[in-house]
Formats: sequence, structure tokens, C-alpha cells
Amino acid sequence: MTLVSPADLDRACADVAGRVVRTPLLPVPGTGHSFWLKPENLQTTGAFKIRGAHHRIASMTDAERARGVVTHSSGNHAQAVSWSARAFGTSAVVVMPDTATRVKVDATRALGARVLTTAPELYRDRAYELAAEHGYTLIPPFDDPHVIAGQGTVGREILEDLPGDLTVLVPVGGGGLVSGVAAAVKQSRPGSRVVGVEPALAGDAAESVRTGRLSRWTADRTGRTVADGLRTPSLGRLNWEHVRAYVDDVITVTEEEIRASARFLAARAHLVAEASGAVATAGHLFHGDRLPPELPRVAVVSGGNADPDWLAALWN
Amino acid sequence: MTLVSPADLDRACADVAGRVVRTPLLPVPGTGHSFWLKPENLQTTGAFKIRGAHHRIASMTDAERARGVVTHSSGNHAQAVSWSARAFGTSAVVVMPDTATRVKVDATRALGARVLTTAPELYRDRAYELAAEHGYTLIPPFDDPHVIAGQGTVGREILEDLPGDLTVLVPVGGGGLVSGVAAAVKQSRPGSRVVGVEPALAGDAAESVRTGRLSRWTADRTGRTVADGLRTPSLGRLNWEHVRAYVDDVITVTEEEIRASARFLAARAHLVAEASGAVATAGHLFHGDRLPPELPRVAVVSGGNADPDWLAALWN
Repeated sequence: MTLVSPADLDRACADVAGRVVRTPLLPVPGTGHSFWLKPENLQTTGAFKIRGAHHRIASMTDAERARGVVTHSSGNHAQAVSWSARAFGTSAVVVMPDTATRVKVDATRALGARVLTTAPELYRDRAYELAAEHGYTLIPPFDDPHVIAGQGTVGREILEDLPGDLTVLVPVGGGGLVSGVAAAVKQSRPGSRVVGVEPALAGDAAESVRTGRLSRWTADRTGRTVADGLRTPSLGRLNWEHVRAYVDDVITVTEEEIRASARFLAARAHLVAEASGAVATAGHLFHGDRLPPELPRVAVVSGGNADPDWLAALWN
Repeated sequence: MTLVSPADLDRACADVAGRVVRTPLLPVPGTGHSFWLKPENLQTTGAFKIRGAHHRIASMTDAERARGVVTHSSGNHAQAVSWSARAFGTSAVVVMPDTATRVKVDATRALGARVLTTAPELYRDRAYELAAEHGYTLIPPFDDPHVIAGQGTVGREILEDLPGDLTVLVPVGGGGLVSGVAAAVKQSRPGSRVVGVEPALAGDAAESVRTGRLSRWTADRTGRTVADGLRTPSLGRLNWEHVRAYVDDVITVTEEEIRASARFLAARAHLVAEASGAVATAGHLFHGDRLPPELPRVAVVSGGNADPDWLAALWN
């Protein structure tokens, strides 16, 4: 399998420029360390996912785009594909598990996609069936070179805004974001560190890195975490190759650390993060001992589509 | 009195570049109108105020900076002066009313200023006394040409990011932000509109515009609004001149509209706004009939230093 190259990342950067929000890097003083946030919750659909989806659809032929796209997603990738397809005038079908949060189902429909829901164990297969039946192009949520390069534009932008070596903290689910960011950062600044952060309750990637073999956790296990965007049972295969090549470490955080970090982001950075979006910040706030003391740190706030009930409960 | 000129704004832009967060313009689809947010709640101190304070201190002589600065403020300007003074290695004294929210007092102290509190009717005079006694330079919160030009950099950045004529909605308290933004926007794009937005319970500026004479409301009246950043009894004198020259209209919003807009900003744009920071968005969401239908709209989210209790109550 081929890792994404600097030229792949150049093409992705050119594709997303002016199409997605160029998020700033926000300094957050007062944590005892040089600390910055990359607020991808400010993207139009509330998450970084439109970078990969947009670049993937931009890379299709006109004939492919005329037939349409399909995807399977429990959340933010669904909205990203819906939004990106509409930007290209392409029709989109999204298959979601019937456990997906209502906020995410409604938002996906509002962006113009046709949404089908099925049992959680069937929805991925259903998307592949629809692709085969109708000639749709399947847009994978993470295990795809264009999607990885698209998410890597987050890393390129961080490097543009902060000179010198740094530690970048990235949430890990299927590994699309961490793969792209790690490729971008390590190719340009090999003295930097890229650290994945995962809920301990969905710690398959940390286990994979520790054992050197790709771990797969059951949905029963990963389903325990509040971070619904990171319940993926394992890294994708291409993502695992990127993690082995470019990611320095994967650390795990507790559910209470995730909640405390979401409160921190609201109170100190004025950002609404969903649970998955607060995980990287938890790595800095609670596991600094696993990070190099001398490098400034950037945490990617990957998304903000928090369930209103979860948000309300944060303050009580 | 002289209004700020394009050259004044050029100097302010040069001063703040690289010193404050270059906030993006965030598109918010789904309100039935082209609508964008300028999220100044993402500034390091949680509000636009550091732009004016930084430019004001940058414009002082070395001898003046060696003596130090003083200000009076109920909130965000206090943090802005504290932060900006520290950036220049200048000592700062901040006089706050003893009614200021605890969040803002603590944050000001944490940034290095010496904070004194007095009764609300005395704190402005006390700042002037300290300036006279110790040779400190007084940094006014809004009634000052450098402060106005500094806040005007918000307007210049909006123009950089969005071509063509537009309507810009700006919260109005003492008038520093609306004066600077209006000067920047109307000098460059006279076909654009700048509309101030105020809580009806502190509607002195709307009354001033309606009657053509500068109104002054008692602290008892303006104190009724939850938007503590906009309780100023009247526009400053220089601000009033800018409003007369450049502001097309000032509209008022209700307390419930402010709360609904703060919820909208959290749910749809993933931004935590304080009440004053949600006021301009309320102008778009609830008073679109007062705005030109054909122009895209930008609302400035002026600050995010919300009291935790107020935030919690939003969700219940």
C-alpha cells in the first residue's frame, strides 16, 4: 500500500482552498505550556470531514459524478459527503446506523442527501450493495488515499501558522485524520511529534500500536464511550500503514477527562466541542507526562456536533 | 472632532497583524439568507477589545509606557488592557465596579494587572484620579480615536474575506466597535450598510439615532439587560460622531431573542457567546425586516466570556 505523498497533499490543499473554512490556530494561555487549538468544529458541517470528502469527490471523473455517490457513516462523514456532493451538483445516498444521533441524521438530510438507516451491523454492507447496484461511487470515511490527503490539509495549515517543531494531538477513530495530519507534519518537520488520542473505552488503536498488530474491538466494547465519532472497531488498513510510518504514540483518556476537556474548551476557548472533538485536548490537559516537555502543542478540535442533552449535562 | 481616516485604519491594521487572532469569517447556512459570523469571541482574552487596547498602547511613547497605564472597565476591556500592557512590558491598573462578574475580575488579575474595585458610580473617576496622581496613561474603553481605529480592524478583515456590498451587524454599547467597523466598511464600500444592535433594555443609542440627539440612560435602566457588556449609559462623544456619519440604523432586540441567539450560536456555529456577543446575531435572526433583503449579512460575535451560570441556564 502506498502512503500519501507530499504531491498528494499539495493537490488536496489546492482542492480545498476557498471551499472549506481556513480555520485559525488559537492560542490558549494558562495551562502551563505553549498550547494551541485547531478548531475544525468551525467548519460549515461542524467537523473536519468535509476536507476529505470534498477532495475525494473533486478527484472523480465527470461521468462518475453524474452517477452519484454513496457512503456509510454514523455521523460527521455523512454530513460531509452530503455537503460536498451538493457543492459538485452530485446526488448522494447516505446509509446510517439506526443508532446515530438525531442531530446528525437531521443535519445530513438538511444538506440534501437521501438518508437510509439500517441496523448497525448492516449499514456498511448496504452502502457497498447500493454502489454495485446503481454505479454509485463509494466515498469511504477514512480508508482511502484521497480522504487521507484531504484530512491532511489540517496538518499543512497548522504548519503554515506555527513555525518550528511541535507536538500535534489528533483524535483517533478509523484513522483518517491522524493519518493525513501525521503524513503532512512528519514529511515536512521530522523533528515534530504526532500523537493520537483515543477514549480508553475504544482503545483499539493504542492496543494496535502497543502490540504491533492491527487490533479489532467489537462494537459492544467501543460503544461504551461517549465519543460516538471514535467508536470505529479498528483503524482502516491504509490508516494503519500511516500510523506505523508516521504516528509517534497513541494515548488513551477517560470519559471524565473528555467531559472536563469539553468544559475547558467552552469556558476557556469559547468553542463547543462534541465529545470526540474534546479528546485531543484531554491528552494535553491530563497526559502531558506522555508528551515532550520542550515542544509547543496543538490539539485538533475535530468536531462540534454535540447532542444538546450531552451539552446541557456538562454544566450540571 | 475628527473621524478616523483610512490612514488611521491602515496603521491599526499594521499594529495588530500577528498580535491578535486573525479570525475567519464563518458561513452559517440554513437561515434563509446569506449569513456569516465574525467570531471575535475566539480572541485570546475572549473579545475584540484587545484590538483597540493593543493599538492604543502601541501608539504611546516609550516614556509613557514606562510610567504605565490605567483603565476603568466592567469587563472585557479590562482583560484587553491587561493583556496588551503585558505584551509591551507595561504595568497596568484596572479599576472595576464591584458589580463586575467574577469571571471577568479573575481573568483580568490572571493577565497581570492590578485590579481595584469600587462602587459602580465611582470607578471611572477613580481611574482618572490614578492617572493624574501617578502619570499613568488612561486607556479609554471606547471614546478614543486609536481605540476606535483598533476595533475597526474587525471591519477591514470582514472586507478582505467577503467581496461586494454587505450588511454588517455590530453590537452597540459605548460605540467603540460600531464606530471603527462602520468607518472601515463605509469608507471602502459606501453601498454597504452598517447596523448597530442593542438590547431594548439598554436602547440609548437607538434612541439617540431616532431623535438625532445623544441620549443618556441611567445605570438603573441599562442594568436591566443580561448583556452586561452593553450597559454603558450612552455612546461616547467621538463614537456618536462616527455613528452619525457612518451607521445606517440601530435596532433593538429583546432579552429572550438574545438568549435564543446564544443557543443558536452554540448549536449551529459551535461558538460560546456571552450575551453581548449574541446581540448582533439576534438582529439577523429576529429583525431581518429591518435589513436590506438583497445584501449578504455578517454579524460580529463580539465576545465569549459568559458567566458559567448563564451558560448552564441556556440549556434548561
